[in-house]
Amino acid sequence: MRIVRCKTAQGINYGIIEGSRIRLLDGDPFADWKVRGFASLEDATLLAPCTPSKIVAVGINYEPHAEEIQFAIPPEPLIFLKPPSAVIGPWDSIVLPDMSQQVEYEGELAVVMGRRAKNISVEDALLAVLGYTCINDVTARDLQKIDVQFTRSKSFDTFAPVGPWIETDVAPGNLQIETRLNGRKKQKANTSSMIRPVEALISFISGVMTLQPGDIIATGTPAGVGILSQGDTVSVTIEKIGTLTNKVEKHDSN
Amino acid sequence: MRIVRCKTAQGINYGIIEGSRIRLLDGDPFADWKVRGFASLEDATLLAPCTPSKIVAVGINYEPHAEEIQFAIPPEPLIFLKPPSAVIGPWDSIVLPDMSQQVEYEGELAVVMGRRAKNISVEDALLAVLGYTCINDVTARDLQKIDVQFTRSKSFDTFAPVGPWIETDVAPGNLQIETRLNGRKKQKANTSSMIRPVEALISFISGVMTLQPGDIIATGTPAGVGILSQGDTVSVTIEKIGTLTNKVEKHDSN
Repeated sequence: MRIVRCKTAQGINYGIIEGSRIRLLDGDPFADWKVRGFASLEDATLLAPCTPSKIVAVGINYEPHAEEIQFAIPPEPLIFLKPPSAVIGPWDSIVLPDMSQQVEYEGELAVVMGRRAKNISVEDALLAVLGYTCINDVTARDLQKIDVQFTRSKSFDTFAPVGPWIETDVAPGNLQIETRLNGRKKQKANTSSMIRPVEALISFISGVMTLQPGDIIATGTPAGVGILSQGDTVSVTIEKIGTLTNKVEKHDSN
Repeated sequence: MRIVRCKTAQGINYGIIEGSRIRLLDGDPFADWKVRGFASLEDATLLAPCTPSKIVAVGINYEPHAEEIQFAIPPEPLIFLKPPSAVIGPWDSIVLPDMSQQVEYEGELAVVMGRRAKNISVEDALLAVLGYTCINDVTARDLQKIDVQFTRSKSFDTFAPVGPWIETDVAPGNLQIETRLNGRKKQKANTSSMIRPVEALISFISGVMTLQPGDIIATGTPAGVGILSQGDTVSVTIEKIGTLTNKVEKHDSN
């Protein structure tokens, strides 16, 4: 099942993709809902497929990326937060802020929680998941180095493109993930090469903080990160899920 | 005006304190509301006075605290995020997690945003504020040192006590702030000694991310941080605002 959030003539709704149309829902896929009607996929604008209360991201989860940014592999998962205000949807523009001269893409598998989870075991972790989507953990690399803390560099508005939909019928452990910049392949890995698999990440994070339905875990980026410039198009493709594409604009300070 | 969120026989509502009673509101103080009725302050349970979409905290904002935790004063404000899932209200318990052996209090002035703010100037910053309250930026100091990133150490459930209410009629620049542990004074400073004043913090943060009504900025802690143990009572008192008191419990792993 592919769950979208979309804007149509009927407003903003969650929906389920059925061929070339969307079955629109009243309510949200985390609780009770009923069918509201249908819309054509063509006439709908896809939004970020959920509205997380938090985005918990994992810092170093593919060994070649640890090498390229010269970070040691941490003894426990390294987590940080991106704010809900950074979320944008498919085809929305990533806006390069004036504060940074080095904004980079980081394509990642995103986990979307379906249920509240606190202290969940590795064995039960996937039972609390609604599905999976793509996220681009956009990062101002220069500010990340200056601040040491990752927060500023990863929290600018538009720095969390998510989508295009939540795929519920896929296992997270063996998926090809690729990031393309203006059509050229830049990142390529398989989720099977994560240092810590999705189940371990969910269990660890839920041991720190309660995960809520709709919350996102960004599972770390493979090697091959690089700079985004005005006018670029960047896309994250994950096997069996889909492609998240965004344009890049410069902040207009006037 | 002192704005509370409270639980009464009528449910959970925002309200305004009027002597020994609360004028309960339908709606929230950030938008349209009407008076719903009254409740006795005695019969109400005060909750955290807002439900932030994000808590943006400032790392080093009083010089003596920078010295005690051996951090250099950063050239720009050092920001980090605490998740909404960490918020608790007055008199709720801070729960010491199994992962840490060194959980510490950090009393701070909290700014509650009243309006959406993006790229707001220092001059206009306070116009976007609804009011001020107390926050305890509870921190697992041992994990903060291990992780370097502050996120895990500051994101455990119950690690963001907020309250007791939002005081709207106070200026933030010259307020005594004190933290007491079991009645003994541990932290004492005046907000006039902040390295960067509230206006500068709001302007800087809003240049990174859009602040939403109800969002909280934790403005940094003075010197005197120290360990919390099971059975402790910790309180943060800010002049002209009030006192936030919380108990401390050990996580029951059974």
